[in-house]
Amino acid sequence: MAIVTLTTDFGYAEPYVGVMKGVMLGINRAITFVDLTHGVEARNIRQAAFALAYAAPWFPEGAIHLAVVDPGVGTQRKALVLEADGQYFVGPDNGIFTLVMARAGTWRAHEIAHSELSLPEISGTFHGRDVFAPAAAWISRGGVPLEAFGPPVAAPERLAQTHAMRSAGNLIEGEVVHTDHFGNAITNISRELVEQMARELEPDDGLEIIVGSMTAPGLVKTYSDAPDSTSLWATFSSGGAIELFVRGGSAARLFGLKAGDHVEVRFF
Amino acid sequence: MAIVTLTTDFGYAEPYVGVMKGVMLGINRAITFVDLTHGVEARNIRQAAFALAYAAPWFPEGAIHLAVVDPGVGTQRKALVLEADGQYFVGPDNGIFTLVMARAGTWRAHEIAHSELSLPEISGTFHGRDVFAPAAAWISRGGVPLEAFGPPVAAPERLAQTHAMRSAGNLIEGEVVHTDHFGNAITNISRELVEQMARELEPDDGLEIIVGSMTAPGLVKTYSDAPDSTSLWATFSSGGAIELFVRGGSAARLFGLKAGDHVEVRFF
Amino acid sequence: MAIVTLTTDFGYAEPYVGVMKGVMLGINRAITFVDLTHGVEARNIRQAAFALAYAAPWFPEGAIHLAVVDPGVGTQRKALVLEADGQYFVGPDNGIFTLVMARAGTWRAHEIAHSELSLPEISGTFHGRDVFAPAAAWISRGGVPLEAFGPPVAAPERLAQTHAMRSAGNLIEGEVVHTDHFGNAITNISRELVEQMARELEPDDGLEIIVGSMTAPGLVKTYSDAPDSTSLWATFSSGGAIELFVRGGSAARLFGLKAGDHVEVRFF
Repeated sequence: MAIVTLTTDFGYAEPYVGVMKGVMLGINRAITFVDLTHGVEARNIRQAAFALAYAAPWFPEGAIHLAVVDPGVGTQRKALVLEADGQYFVGPDNGIFTLVMARAGTWRAHEIAHSELSLPEISGTFHGRDVFAPAAAWISRGGVPLEAFGPPVAAPERLAQTHAMRSAGNLIEGEVVHTDHFGNAITNISRELVEQMARELEPDDGLEIIVGSMTAPGLVKTYSDAPDSTSLWATFSSGGAIELFVRGGSAARLFGLKAGDHVEVRFF
Repeated sequence: MAIVTLTTDFGYAEPYVGVMKGVMLGINRAITFVDLTHGVEARNIRQAAFALAYAAPWFPEGAIHLAVVDPGVGTQRKALVLEADGQYFVGPDNGIFTLVMARAGTWRAHEIAHSELSLPEISGTFHGRDVFAPAAAWISRGGVPLEAFGPPVAAPERLAQTHAMRSAGNLIEGEVVHTDHFGNAITNISRELVEQMARELEPDDGLEIIVGSMTAPGLVKTYSDAPDSTSLWATFSSGGAIELFVRGGSAARLFGLKAGDHVEVRFF
Repeated sequence: MAIVTLTTDFGYAEPYVGVMKGVMLGINRAITFVDLTHGVEARNIRQAAFALAYAAPWFPEGAIHLAVVDPGVGTQRKALVLEADGQYFVGPDNGIFTLVMARAGTWRAHEIAHSELSLPEISGTFHGRDVFAPAAAWISRGGVPLEAFGPPVAAPERLAQTHAMRSAGNLIEGEVVHTDHFGNAITNISRELVEQMARELEPDDGLEIIVGSMTAPGLVKTYSDAPDSTSLWATFSSGGAIELFVRGGSAARLFGLKAGDHVEVRFF
């Protein structure tokens, strides 16, 4: 069984995701589907890019990730197949693979230009079904190299400012990239960057994390290590980034945290 | 692997869908499940009928579609297995297959009357589990002809007024059948009917689409072709029907469109 | 294909469930996944316990049920693998398996203590991915006995007061355990207990079900048997417990019923 994951902004009540699976099963019967999320905010490419980069590394080699957040459907934006560190990615060339490419040791991308690997008729509104699902299914069958889809794409589109940066001697600046179902606010400030600066600075007292007018006084190992359930604390998320939380509650609701909020880590 | 799709009004938070899958796996281990939608409004047979007819054609021959929107569970309404154009459909005889039958070249229906193909005990409240899921699973194993389930049903129940009609020389009357996750309003006015009238009338100026007090001034090929993002436009949906949309926004929210709204196409 | 079901409080919009599936597919490619529910209220172990006990009996022998509602993640709470009546259960030792154990003829539990059956690195916040998913996948491959995971656990944690009780000669006291998508209120008062008391008491007139200030005047066989669609009625649910409903409507919305509400059955 091949593995095909799906990431879309189609929501859960529409038959669109099922239709894409139907098209794929018409090309290859031996697929295990895994829905990553269909809850991406409508047309929010950035949110999809983060979800995909979070989830993909936990899948085995050869897994195929189909990502359809596609506000430019029907325009001249390219359609892509991409191979990165032994996994495959299929979707529009609109920046949705920015973080996958950034994390990959090696990657290569090709345009989906040869129509014999798409459905016979391509609509103006649903390339997920007509172009991307067939491409994923053909890859899942094996024996179709990326070259067969079309010419190489040397520089796929990329989103701006997806990474946190060291902005001063003792400061990291980043942002909240997602508030999850529990109300935890996940940032783009990686454990690696924090630990590297900590090693270099050997700070006397530690660090604090500042978001808006709130300050989390430091990092704890697990949610239960937060000394109270009314103030903001931080931990390293399961994806290896700084995550702001309230013990047993919702940081998003209690403190109004949301995607895009500026976050600073200050060593002292 | 056999393919079984599921369409219900059970929502996403209940274990009912999982239980139906458990029952099916007890009869046949080699099933690939595809959830079409469990977001049908409670007891809305009409909505389920449209979702099913939209999605089924994209699945390969032999696919089995289980549909459980069943307000009459426990009453004398019949239980059906249906074969239409090489695919199978299982569910209550309440009109849910109206559009599937209307589109099929050939179909035949049988009642599920023989209890050895249902669970040993049949509850009064959950035939999805006790009757329909077992029937779908037996079909998926192969070797069980429709005749084995019970007597033929010559005239299954049908919903009224599911199709748009030409109502005057230059007019089509139809309705909004669904507003989707993006706020696009899909109608039951098919591309075939529009194109046939266009060929016949050779209209001077084109056509306009009227819904309530709003008018979409014509059809564009893709969402991006709409010249602005504040007014109503129309395109042919991915299912081949007129779809009303707002570029980059929600027609349902901006203009209050909803299922059941009367829609007219006027050629001039 | 092995069967692995999933029950969590992760919601539907997060990639966390998909990541657990990715981890499992890295250990065993031949798994059919069935999502029972990811709509458990955040950290509501009791709700998950009822959903799991409702659904598991409908799956075939050998099915593996992964349950991750885990407010104590990262603390000293144990991680469990459990075998009950030929099925397997994997999750935290926090009472989530209370009802499974209560219903089982025989069960045995082992701690997940041997790290070679978990991921190499175990985070402080996501044992669903790092501990429970790998354990479920190893069981699904076969050949790994429960003993291999760690020492036996004689007395796993249990939730208090999960069962309805006969509290007087002619009274049963229980509670609403769940209001479902249709607004039906499912209680923990089993058909067995009701029928046993009915046989013993031979009540003259029957029984009534009291919840707050409302009274359902008796039990009907199916929803359609309720004589009206404005008052509260009761039936035996598809899970074999008393269920309060309004014909064609929502008992939860109309009468404000919710999980935890006290319910009495009075024979007279």
